[in-house]
Amino acid sequence: MNISITGCGQTKFGELWDSSPRSLARQAVFTAIADSGINKKSIQAIFVSNMLSGILGMQSHLGALFAEELGIQVPAFTIEGACASGGLAVHSAINSLLSQKYNTVLVLGVEKMTDHSSEFISSALMGAGSNEERLAGATFPALYALLARAHMEKYGTTESQLASVSVKNHFHASLNPLAQFSHPLTLDQVIRSSSVASPLKLLECSPISDGAAAIILQSSSSPKKDSVEIIASEVATDTLGLANRNSLTELQSTKKAAKNAFTSCGITPSDIDIAEVHDCFSIAEILAIEDIGFDKKGEVAKKMEQGKYRIDSDGLVINSSGGLKGCGHPIGATGVKQIIEIYNQLLGQCKDRQVKNAQLGLTHNVGGTGATAVIHILKKHD
Amino acid sequence: MNISITGCGQTKFGELWDSSPRSLARQAVFTAIADSGINKKSIQAIFVSNMLSGILGMQSHLGALFAEELGIQVPAFTIEGACASGGLAVHSAINSLLSQKYNTVLVLGVEKMTDHSSEFISSALMGAGSNEERLAGATFPALYALLARAHMEKYGTTESQLASVSVKNHFHASLNPLAQFSHPLTLDQVIRSSSVASPLKLLECSPISDGAAAIILQSSSSPKKDSVEIIASEVATDTLGLANRNSLTELQSTKKAAKNAFTSCGITPSDIDIAEVHDCFSIAEILAIEDIGFDKKGEVAKKMEQGKYRIDSDGLVINSSGGLKGCGHPIGATGVKQIIEIYNQLLGQCKDRQVKNAQLGLTHNVGGTGATAVIHILKKHD
Repeated sequence: MNISITGCGQTKFGELWDSSPRSLARQAVFTAIADSGINKKSIQAIFVSNMLSGILGMQSHLGALFAEELGIQVPAFTIEGACASGGLAVHSAINSLLSQKYNTVLVLGVEKMTDHSSEFISSALMGAGSNEERLAGATFPALYALLARAHMEKYGTTESQLASVSVKNHFHASLNPLAQFSHPLTLDQVIRSSSVASPLKLLECSPISDGAAAIILQSSSSPKKDSVEIIASEVATDTLGLANRNSLTELQSTKKAAKNAFTSCGITPSDIDIAEVHDCFSIAEILAIEDIGFDKKGEVAKKMEQGKYRIDSDGLVINSSGGLKGCGHPIGATGVKQIIEIYNQLLGQCKDRQVKNAQLGLTHNVGGTGATAVIHILKKHD
Repeated sequence: MNISITGCGQTKFGELWDSSPRSLARQAVFTAIADSGINKKSIQAIFVSNMLSGILGMQSHLGALFAEELGIQVPAFTIEGACASGGLAVHSAINSLLSQKYNTVLVLGVEKMTDHSSEFISSALMGAGSNEERLAGATFPALYALLARAHMEKYGTTESQLASVSVKNHFHASLNPLAQFSHPLTLDQVIRSSSVASPLKLLECSPISDGAAAIILQSSSSPKKDSVEIIASEVATDTLGLANRNSLTELQSTKKAAKNAFTSCGITPSDIDIAEVHDCFSIAEILAIEDIGFDKKGEVAKKMEQGKYRIDSDGLVINSSGGLKGCGHPIGATGVKQIIEIYNQLLGQCKDRQVKNAQLGLTHNVGGTGATAVIHILKKHD
């Protein structure tokens, strides 16, 4: 059975003060429905991805809420796995299609974060981490800073190399009209920005964002012409806290999910033309590129600074959307947006940031510091 | 393909001050694993059902958390749909088996509520309802009281008939060593208990509870001898708020899910020997029995008072576990516990509360005032 993406919709990501979660959801979903050309009545189930609505807004039961809001009164589920919620929701939706229980489903990722104080949000976000880390006062910038420091010690990675991740991703975001940040950054600007948790600078941390992203998934017995098919969907978990891991210079969950994904569809990392990876912090993108197997451990940061992975470079392009750093990171929406970016790239719909001749794409969505990782591989059918 | 329940485990439900969510989860899961006889390494995915951990405890990402806690490092998902979270998690787990992505999965429902003030919990629970209802100051007892009042007006249902639901369920709970309440109640005690939201009395409202419930689900090409198979799993949604419904004397979501469930496995309500239905309030059990189609609308309350649906009556038995009222209602665990009760009844493992010769059972799990409803039908294979 083939699983195809037949429609996508995304709101602008950013500080959307005048939009409610409901209005964001409507905008993303009705764009996706129009893109697919289906009647909304043919949608048979809804998979909502969200992390913080209960904590920040005391609103749970989002499946039924959005089913009512959208006028699509069908079975509805909320899937949560911290910042990997979007990837998990897509995986769950795919399983529901493969089970033949449904044949047309909607995945909706939505998060509204900017209405709250950054202190409250930081505290809520630590709900994705281990109890010990929370009690120790650690925040995610601090935890990823530990990963960055370990990588610098072991592989000689430099602050300038890390900063080059943000330069690339803001360059891409400047070409994406739906991105939170429209301005490019210089290496100097990133390096001179204030330190959040050494060695990570402010401009190496993904922002607090509002936004929604929706996709329509359909099953069919054979792939349709000019469609985008999801040919692999794999999830892996690791310890919640860093203290219980054997290594701080790799994410085992990413390695496992990627390995399983490549095995399941019979391709290799070198076959991938374009990927959206989970760059919540600069070091996270370096780790992702290494752990997925795109390039050798310890060599990615240097290549990044030399201009690799940009849309105007040869070979693999990473985070053409701007990534979490440039496009924004409304948590529940992120994993769904990654799929949308690859879909649009494979169909040649990305205008100024279009990557040429992309046939195979990959998404990589992480929860916490790698306690959850989700990999999807997408293929264009000519 | 057949979906079998091969093991179950449940903690005692109640005010478990000396237990953490982790310890409750361990107890339920390792009991289920021992019951099934499998090695925990054969579990391929974990579906966690929980509503309030983020709000009450600021702990999200429970899939990865319990995967680590249990030493079962596999893909893990948290599924939320208010008080129907357990039913939705079981449905999601079944779909993952039918998709052939996995063949052995764990469903874990867990909730720890009693560590918090009842005001905070009431507020958090309203996260399952509509915004308008919250702004109006409504709580779930008040909303279900509206349903009760409408039912009394239309069908002449009496306060005494409603109270008889609690009498039956406490009688059953008094025979269930894992139930929160071990004492039977008289009709007079229920009627004389303080009014919470007229016409509903304190002893007609399910309690605030802690607890965990776990089941192992496995797929196979043919049903095993002496196994319990899940032969139908259906979900339906309705409006979040009561104001947008055409009728207050029925839950459309229950009717739809039940109809689809019976159709999908080719049986009728009269074939069912035993059912666990969502009696969050006394009126909810009356509505459930009617809307599932077990008895005619308007006639159930009278029969209830006459002693029908008890384990010592002839015919259909409802809530032999004690239901939400008598056994307790740790939200995320409830929908999973319902499955466990039917499993144990069908296998003849319920001792003092054993229903004789039960072959077919049904579970009915509701979120909010019926915005979500989930129906499962279970069959014993001799």
